[in-house]
Amino acid sequence: MTDPFVVVGGDAAGLSAASKCRREDPDREVVVFEQGDWVSYAQCGMPYFVKGEVDDITDLLSLSPEAAAERGIDLRRRHEVTRVDPDEKTVTVRNESGTFEQPYADLLVASGARALSTPIPGTELSGAFTLHHMDDTAALRAFLVDDAEAESIASVEYVDGEYVREYGARDPPETAAIVGGGYVGVEMAEAFAAHDLDVHLFQRPDQLLPPFGEAAGERAAETLREHGVTVHLQTEVEALVGDDRDHLMAVEHDDGRLQADVAVVGVGVRPNTEFLAGSDVDLGPSGAVAVDEFGQTNREAVFAAGDCAEMRHAVTGEADWVPLGLTANRAGRAIGQTVAGDREPVGDIAGTAAVKAFELECGRTGILDHDRAWDAGFDPVSETVTAGSRSGYYPGNAETTVTLTADSQSGRLLGGAIAGEDRAAIRIDTVATAIEHEATVAEIERLDLAYAPPFSPVWDPVLVAAKVLRGTLED
Amino acid sequence: MTDPFVVVGGDAAGLSAASKCRREDPDREVVVFEQGDWVSYAQCGMPYFVKGEVDDITDLLSLSPEAAAERGIDLRRRHEVTRVDPDEKTVTVRNESGTFEQPYADLLVASGARALSTPIPGTELSGAFTLHHMDDTAALRAFLVDDAEAESIASVEYVDGEYVREYGARDPPETAAIVGGGYVGVEMAEAFAAHDLDVHLFQRPDQLLPPFGEAAGERAAETLREHGVTVHLQTEVEALVGDDRDHLMAVEHDDGRLQADVAVVGVGVRPNTEFLAGSDVDLGPSGAVAVDEFGQTNREAVFAAGDCAEMRHAVTGEADWVPLGLTANRAGRAIGQTVAGDREPVGDIAGTAAVKAFELECGRTGILDHDRAWDAGFDPVSETVTAGSRSGYYPGNAETTVTLTADSQSGRLLGGAIAGEDRAAIRIDTVATAIEHEATVAEIERLDLAYAPPFSPVWDPVLVAAKVLRGTLED
Repeated sequence: MTDPFVVVGGDAAGLSAASKCRREDPDREVVVFEQGDWVSYAQCGMPYFVKGEVDDITDLLSLSPEAAAERGIDLRRRHEVTRVDPDEKTVTVRNESGTFEQPYADLLVASGARALSTPIPGTELSGAFTLHHMDDTAALRAFLVDDAEAESIASVEYVDGEYVREYGARDPPETAAIVGGGYVGVEMAEAFAAHDLDVHLFQRPDQLLPPFGEAAGERAAETLREHGVTVHLQTEVEALVGDDRDHLMAVEHDDGRLQADVAVVGVGVRPNTEFLAGSDVDLGPSGAVAVDEFGQTNREAVFAAGDCAEMRHAVTGEADWVPLGLTANRAGRAIGQTVAGDREPVGDIAGTAAVKAFELECGRTGILDHDRAWDAGFDPVSETVTAGSRSGYYPGNAETTVTLTADSQSGRLLGGAIAGEDRAAIRIDTVATAIEHEATVAEIERLDLAYAPPFSPVWDPVLVAAKVLRGTLED
Repeated sequence: MTDPFVVVGGDAAGLSAASKCRREDPDREVVVFEQGDWVSYAQCGMPYFVKGEVDDITDLLSLSPEAAAERGIDLRRRHEVTRVDPDEKTVTVRNESGTFEQPYADLLVASGARALSTPIPGTELSGAFTLHHMDDTAALRAFLVDDAEAESIASVEYVDGEYVREYGARDPPETAAIVGGGYVGVEMAEAFAAHDLDVHLFQRPDQLLPPFGEAAGERAAETLREHGVTVHLQTEVEALVGDDRDHLMAVEHDDGRLQADVAVVGVGVRPNTEFLAGSDVDLGPSGAVAVDEFGQTNREAVFAAGDCAEMRHAVTGEADWVPLGLTANRAGRAIGQTVAGDREPVGDIAGTAAVKAFELECGRTGILDHDRAWDAGFDPVSETVTAGSRSGYYPGNAETTVTLTADSQSGRLLGGAIAGEDRAAIRIDTVATAIEHEATVAEIERLDLAYAPPFSPVWDPVLVAAKVLRGTLED
């Protein structure tokens, strides 16, 4: 009998691969080792559970352990893979009972990423969160709500009840400090504001949401401020400070000190690849696993996907590390199919992402940053326009800010960002599709996009931006 | 001195060309002849003025005669071009004072289209409208509102006050008959329903919005019915019947007779090209003017754009006639640039369109119809899926119906349609962009589209449809 397809990590990439492999080859044995209790949870939904927009924490699970079992996946939670041996084709697994060796025919490394908290001291304090795990999410919401609701969260299956009850028992916080102005920071500002906290967001760079470019970042900051959030740009948090019970009581930053009783640190993530030490599986420059177009590593029968793996960027053609949900699902699914015997490329990434900041929608794709574009051999030019989201006479027409970046030599579109309150984020998909097909700005200007007064003006904001950028390119 | 650039028609295509030419070459004389009083009006906005969503009829004007004059355009309203002589490079123009010959260096035929009303007898009755002209729009709204508002409409500049007052003086209608279930029909159903009329829509085919495919048509019919509109499918209106004052009183159809005191006939349009008789300017099979990639006709220095002209279809590569607003603006603008000395292609069309039916948004692009696809040499296969517009756990997640059609030999995407209540129409732009870049279904399945719980699930409905269609193609 063939050894199983072994998957390290029971989240989006791992379970997508396991499910697809089982569907394509129902006789194949598939074993998934998950270090924790939770599997297949929607990290992007966490801020909305904290906010109260999503009622039940289990709504964030896209595949329950029971459903995985129904698909014939041998899912083993609380099993940590500590070592990979591609020569012997085995992994070393540790669980409550001890350690064992598991042989594999194919291996998928889908170990994800973890929130960075260093180098800020104090992140271990009670009241400080990184919001990367379900139990933290449960605990944070329990902290914000009344006792009855906290108890109902604590008693949900899979939830670490003791940890959650500890927060449920505390007085609700009044002032929130958010460290980092990326996705998590901006979404958490909205979540805390919904609970009427005094919200402070600290961001070391000079803008929010740096990957979305300056114009979108400015609109996001403006929106947060309109909702009463104090946005501290170019302000570095130096330490979280606790009281004698090790409860968070203040945030020290390079411009002063803020009394705060809850903090979320969202300053990025790093790939979980330490257990690959000694395996000769190559990592890329980002520290994530290097893979080919089928998600295969340099070692035979060892694949990697999701937040722990690099992918090829559609614009640069080079490996890049952009840990996002669709990428994990798509690459996992492709690898599951490949392992089942029908080779399927994992596809490129364009770094397409969207985020909501209160009523503001932002989307981004490709390469906006000029330094990165230069590094990739382009000569970047950008333009930003603000145009209407609907016909000017139609109610609800909203100012939509579009930034497009192109290579001045070839006219090829490299990146784009959109911010606005009316269907702004979803318009980025048009730009992403154009980028992945190596469209020039002139081609985009001539795209036959939909026009209907309630949804889009004659010249969609994307077309307006292309017109202006093309003018600049041709000057 | 060079003869002027002469434009026939003062709407989207004509004034886009005139404006662009003046901007690129400020010394160039540009003369625009417009048959009527109104210029540059947003036909797509008319139903929303009738509904009351748009307050002021002049909001529908995108360029006033005064603004055209400021751009240095010699705009002559109430000037009808009756003949074109490309050998002599002159047009014959008729106005109140008589007839004259106007020489041109370049000529743009942008004479638009007119609503079809034949072969239904009775469309000349008072109370029967085709809603193609501003005065009809003004009169129809005056018919629906109280006397004071009717008078305020009648007294607006450019409005035919006498015609509008005639309707303002009549009792408001109670039952509306809509003949035709295309854009105008569906939008007018919403408009009449807003005025609490008993609304009946008659459609000869077996579905609403045929260009949007069966699934979108069914959803539109369902939505109209939910709002109290009686939808009569496969029902042909045979005549509009008047009383002794020639006021509409009933609609006779092949399934009976409906008492109705207002009717809108929206059964399509035809290009205004009769004045080209004898000019040797070639028309295409559609009856619209045939042009090359620069919008030029077979005659030297004679261009055509907008609702009276064909364009090349991005999927078939062949000439097609799809009169839509963006096409007119884009082609007009390109021709204005070409005439100013900097040759610019008019671009292809993909037949991308969007329409709102109450809260339902529909978008379509490319070739969905299998017979048309066969005619163009493809072997079409379609799939329709219904998928969520947001993450399942996020409030407002709405069922989004996507139809994709591809060529089974090459896997190339040929067309798509989307219907749903949450950002559905705008998602068609992704499909349109893919189609214009000749993407295959497999490429679409691997597109890196934006994922954020409030706007889009991990797998956008377009990706879900591509996955399913690819499965079918590979079976």
